[in-house]
Amino acid sequence: MILRFVLGVKGGGFVLKTCIRPRVSETDAVGHINNTTLPVWFEAGREEIFHRFTPDDNFNNWKCVIINSNIEFISQIYYGKDVEIKTWVKRIGNTSFTLYEELYQENTLCAKSTAVYVNYNLDKQATEPIPEEIREWMSGHLV
Amino acid sequence: MILRFVLGVKGGGFVLKTCIRPRVSETDAVGHINNTTLPVWFEAGREEIFHRFTPDDNFNNWKCVIINSNIEFISQIYYGKDVEIKTWVKRIGNTSFTLYEELYQENTLCAKSTAVYVNYNLDKQATEPIPEEIREWMSGHLV
Amino acid sequence: MILRFVLGVKGGGFVLKTCIRPRVSETDAVGHINNTTLPVWFEAGREEIFHRFTPDDNFNNWKCVIINSNIEFISQIYYGKDVEIKTWVKRIGNTSFTLYEELYQENTLCAKSTAVYVNYNLDKQATEPIPEEIREWMSGHLV
Amino acid sequence: MILRFVLGVKGGGFVLKTCIRPRVSETDAVGHINNTTLPVWFEAGREEIFHRFTPDDNFNNWKCVIINSNIEFISQIYYGKDVEIKTWVKRIGNTSFTLYEELYQENTLCAKSTAVYVNYNLDKQATEPIPEEIREWMSGHLV
Repeated sequence: MILRFVLGVKGGGFVLKTCIRPRVSETDAVGHINNTTLPVWFEAGREEIFHRFTPDDNFNNWKCVIINSNIEFISQIYYGKDVEIKTWVKRIGNTSFTLYEELYQENTLCAKSTAVYVNYNLDKQATEPIPEEIREWMSGHLV
Repeated sequence: MILRFVLGVKGGGFVLKTCIRPRVSETDAVGHINNTTLPVWFEAGREEIFHRFTPDDNFNNWKCVIINSNIEFISQIYYGKDVEIKTWVKRIGNTSFTLYEELYQENTLCAKSTAVYVNYNLDKQATEPIPEEIREWMSGHLV
Repeated sequence: MILRFVLGVKGGGFVLKTCIRPRVSETDAVGHINNTTLPVWFEAGREEIFHRFTPDDNFNNWKCVIINSNIEFISQIYYGKDVEIKTWVKRIGNTSFTLYEELYQENTLCAKSTAVYVNYNLDKQATEPIPEEIREWMSGHLV
Repeated sequence: MILRFVLGVKGGGFVLKTCIRPRVSETDAVGHINNTTLPVWFEAGREEIFHRFTPDDNFNNWKCVIINSNIEFISQIYYGKDVEIKTWVKRIGNTSFTLYEELYQENTLCAKSTAVYVNYNLDKQATEPIPEEIREWMSGHLV
């Protein structure tokens, strides 16, 4: 079995860690993991955050809508070795928040991601303030 | 603009044709198009059929649920050259139907697909007979 | 860390088990895991077999080329719950072999896969006999 | 057949246009195109640029390596309606260049992308100056 989430400590805050095994289908013909795979992996690293906003994992109640994604590609990523995604909260706004993530393979920092999300009510098509209990939980994962 | 569907003739029936441009992200490190890309492309070739069952393209009214997929991989597929998917109806049952597809790159038959679908009402969680007008339309695309 | 492979027993043979966490990007608008995700997951379940044929995981020495894939879709697969792939060897030929896999989510058998591979030398563009030590190892994983 | 590239004019420069048909497998359970699909589509819009750097489309001679990607998500993208990617060159450096792209669906600007690439020699593991003829060609596509 996979450990769902291991909590670590960095600068006082807790980090979410996600272990990912690269797949053959995630490589490209240049020989490494294709750059379009990274948004998929970084999104996988945010699962626990999505789950806080939508505890029943029901997509009819989905809240987290991405509005900006920035990825810095630092080093090639290879098939055959596990990858670790570390996820922190960088900023907690009124209706939006920013996540900061790092991707490691064999202790090499291979990529960094910054993603901005809004807490969005898809039925009402409107943003909503981040609930207090999520805000508090997020405060414990600040970078 | 892309032509949505060009109709051809084979043995009296009409075939649906879909032109696909291979993407870098669809290759793998072995150097060709990854085998897991083919189900995506063959599914893309069935768009017109999905549209007949769900004319408003609204996923709440989605009907076509796949129950079996068989793909025969015949020849490597390369980046840099367009691919053509040809889609025929192979069998029209009461609540299910079978599609047969061929994938060509530069006049080489690279793969064949057979897929079985049921006409499924997701709300009622039950299969439903294929409507007469779809049955008639499908009859014109028999292989 | 993820346990790479846990070996179980079924009918005397050993089965390869792979635990997979469904991703948001692997769902589709119908509400479940999209059918084109399954070939990706089943391929992920074969990693140990690819590794036996190409121990250095170097794609220049890649050997396993798929020639047929059949997937039976039995039950919907949902986001939010881990999936387990069980992989067995079904047949060991001279240059080819057949794998049989089952996909479980919460003890429900959701899909079955049968895949045929050839041991292929991409440089020589020719099939090669399966080496004796791999043949022996595979014999321990027969279904 | 698909028209490979239609050249338009904006502010004196030429823009590369790519028409993309959304696939069922590119949606997610929230009901729209998943955000991780956009890097794939934007990359597809850069095909002509990759081709200028690697005219034989041979991945052993691949040159374009991405080092930064930024995507702004402005409006939901739906299945059932074609999407158009417009690609411009934003900056031409010595060894690197920046691309700017816009994604339209039914005349709505749904997303913007900025991507930075380096001209990289994978054999030598070193950046190389952008050749003069590519530099000239790019100058005609400046935003």
